[in-house]
Amino acid sequence: MADRPAGVLLHLGPGLGNGLANLHNARRARTPVVNVVGDHALTHARFDAPLQSDIRAVASNVSGWIRTSTDPRTLAEDGVSAIQASLDNGGQVATMILPADVCWLDAGDPARLPELRKQQRPGRPDRIEEAAALLRSGEPCVLLVGGAACRSQSLKLASAITNATGAKLLGETFPSRLQRGAGEVPLERLVYLAEFAEMQLAGAQHIILVDTSAPAAFFGYPGRDGSLIPDGADITALLEPGEHTLGTLQTLAGLLGVDESGATLTPLTVPDRPTGALTGEAIGASIAATMPEDVIVVDEGNTSGIWISGATAATPRHDWLTLTGGAIGFGIPAALGASLASPGRPVLNIEADGSAMYTLQALWSQAREGTNVTTLIMNNSSYAVLNMELAKVGAGEAGPRAQEMLDLSGPNLDFVALAEGLGVPGRRVESAEELCAALDEAYQVDGPHLIEVPTPPLM
Amino acid sequence: MADRPAGVLLHLGPGLGNGLANLHNARRARTPVVNVVGDHALTHARFDAPLQSDIRAVASNVSGWIRTSTDPRTLAEDGVSAIQASLDNGGQVATMILPADVCWLDAGDPARLPELRKQQRPGRPDRIEEAAALLRSGEPCVLLVGGAACRSQSLKLASAITNATGAKLLGETFPSRLQRGAGEVPLERLVYLAEFAEMQLAGAQHIILVDTSAPAAFFGYPGRDGSLIPDGADITALLEPGEHTLGTLQTLAGLLGVDESGATLTPLTVPDRPTGALTGEAIGASIAATMPEDVIVVDEGNTSGIWISGATAATPRHDWLTLTGGAIGFGIPAALGASLASPGRPVLNIEADGSAMYTLQALWSQAREGTNVTTLIMNNSSYAVLNMELAKVGAGEAGPRAQEMLDLSGPNLDFVALAEGLGVPGRRVESAEELCAALDEAYQVDGPHLIEVPTPPLM
Repeated sequence: MADRPAGVLLHLGPGLGNGLANLHNARRARTPVVNVVGDHALTHARFDAPLQSDIRAVASNVSGWIRTSTDPRTLAEDGVSAIQASLDNGGQVATMILPADVCWLDAGDPARLPELRKQQRPGRPDRIEEAAALLRSGEPCVLLVGGAACRSQSLKLASAITNATGAKLLGETFPSRLQRGAGEVPLERLVYLAEFAEMQLAGAQHIILVDTSAPAAFFGYPGRDGSLIPDGADITALLEPGEHTLGTLQTLAGLLGVDESGATLTPLTVPDRPTGALTGEAIGASIAATMPEDVIVVDEGNTSGIWISGATAATPRHDWLTLTGGAIGFGIPAALGASLASPGRPVLNIEADGSAMYTLQALWSQAREGTNVTTLIMNNSSYAVLNMELAKVGAGEAGPRAQEMLDLSGPNLDFVALAEGLGVPGRRVESAEELCAALDEAYQVDGPHLIEVPTPPLM
Repeated sequence: MADRPAGVLLHLGPGLGNGLANLHNARRARTPVVNVVGDHALTHARFDAPLQSDIRAVASNVSGWIRTSTDPRTLAEDGVSAIQASLDNGGQVATMILPADVCWLDAGDPARLPELRKQQRPGRPDRIEEAAALLRSGEPCVLLVGGAACRSQSLKLASAITNATGAKLLGETFPSRLQRGAGEVPLERLVYLAEFAEMQLAGAQHIILVDTSAPAAFFGYPGRDGSLIPDGADITALLEPGEHTLGTLQTLAGLLGVDESGATLTPLTVPDRPTGALTGEAIGASIAATMPEDVIVVDEGNTSGIWISGATAATPRHDWLTLTGGAIGFGIPAALGASLASPGRPVLNIEADGSAMYTLQALWSQAREGTNVTTLIMNNSSYAVLNMELAKVGAGEAGPRAQEMLDLSGPNLDFVALAEGLGVPGRRVESAEELCAALDEAYQVDGPHLIEVPTPPLM
């Protein structure tokens, strides 16, 4: 959210393990992260003490850059290198392994931190011209945007380009940060379910990628090819990681003779406040009707949240953050981080019950930091996404033990009690009116809030 | 607890990350674990889908054996190999990476599972004779026991050997499973604080290791050598990992002409039920006065639990499980596992507040499985162990921000609300009488219970 490197401090191999899932999501989001992992003193390594393990091996899973600092005199330079490395390759996790004695011994002089910026190589002219030729060809084109291309200015250019050329504009399924709402470009995203995504791409002859990868299914399934590229269609990448997304789109727009003024923008359309039962539609409308301008939405609603993105498309301008790496347990800590990085902006975390349980502890940190985060727990008492995936791998009817493993009842989780235990005021709502009132209050009263919303099962 | 391999099922690199801290503890405990990590279908790997990452790199941090199954026809054999490998080297984590399509394609014939046993090579005669010679020398010896040597029969032999030779018997700081209480050997363990451990070892000329490593401090500190070996003392390992601990001790005892009958055994001494304020002593006595026979104690009390081990030394026979790898967040899931592995035996989990918050979710699993686990939350509202360690690295007076980071109040955690939210009945006690009554009830009423105990600060 701040477009500056984030900082993480973890302790030894097990601490790094505890942070690995969300570092994985950060890697996929190309979020610049300086990940400091404390290690035993260099002089202590020979003892193979209980907490010792191969930190570098674990770090290699998520890091684009790793350095072990071995000399306090160059520690400050190591820090600068880590910060700069976090901005390379379009943004990555830079892990600095920091032995205890390198910290407690006398350090050298401070190092100078140069101006920080992501690598901003210009896009290659031949690729830009190739994309322009395809767009001008009159053949069915899809412009598939992701990553940095989901920011406001880039999206406006992408919209203008597709409007002018008749191409179809689509967004990747899980963008790191999508700017949307009234006055922004309406972006249809590829659907998580491969069957629907194939329909969205059907007929395309040329797919032009803008800061995203070739469309593929999230998982493989029996008897299905995981690629979502229509038969006979070709793939062209407009740019590579580390190239300047907005600048490259500007060049492309220039070649095609268009600018931002040709973009389609979303008109403001806020629904009436719904009443009555908490259907999926009513939940979506309740959220849309109450959303303040400039809210940051952290979406880990998973199967429970499928109506919400559509329902809120034309509400006041906002940011929408999604689960880029698929490692669940993202929402509550990401909402905390987004809030800390964006003073004054409200944060709405749409959170599935199963995913919430991975990192529920971050609610306490939200309370401690006094962050204005509203957590909506979408409680369907099941691992609905796993039920769906189990059906799709053709494993036949789930036996009673398998069914039990995918069920989150027995006992039911009481998220209001859990929130209170962590110092966050919580309430459960039973109707759309109650949900709207709870959202109003959460946005108006400082500090974190949690609202538990019973949601209908998906299947 | 079952002396059979444990099974773990995790999903892709992030899932393995979520399990890494306790797999680290299992590695240090030499617990045999078959760790199955689901991976993308082999045919899906080329897409670098969002959840893809280098699973093998992460697994190498904790695993003594890793295999990726690539053919359904040999899948059953891979499974047998993993189970057998988990028992090698005295017990280790065997990780089997299992692609989705290898699971859903037609498998070959089932494989035959041979009789499972840990490698039980006999100890080397020359080492055993060397140890016997040292013990007979009349020079000050310490017999330092750990691992499998902390089981009843081995401890009795170790006690008889030291009684007959005048050697000092000491135990490692964090044994995986110590059998203790009335009728068992009283074992003085090396203290976590290096200053005290040095006093315990002072004067030793020969240190003989039995299934443990040379004594060293848990962490390194400025100006201190991490070794705890007294100046001039030598170290002799009676056996290597994978050698038969009990058999080797039997051979040593035979050479020295002693047997189990020469062991010192603890007489039953149960304290009166204490009354009044919840001092450290009163908490220890409350636990000791109520402990049923055969209870399994999972000790992650950390700084809060230092009185409890001593207070319960002469209570009815029981097992005592400790944090072998130092990766906190061990107690609640280990108590669940110990209970599932030991039907009919009660489990008491002594759990520090800070550590509890790492893996609190396992309380819900305890409720779901109906396990007879009693969790005692030792709530001192601080990361006391970190306060202590900060003081020891000579970082000077902690600033306000550092102090904040080591404090667990603001807001205070309400463990009773958290337990109720997870489906576990909870209560907070304010006196020794209430603690005794709560423990009695927890042992008598089926299912899990949580008792929050306000504990005095250590420092």
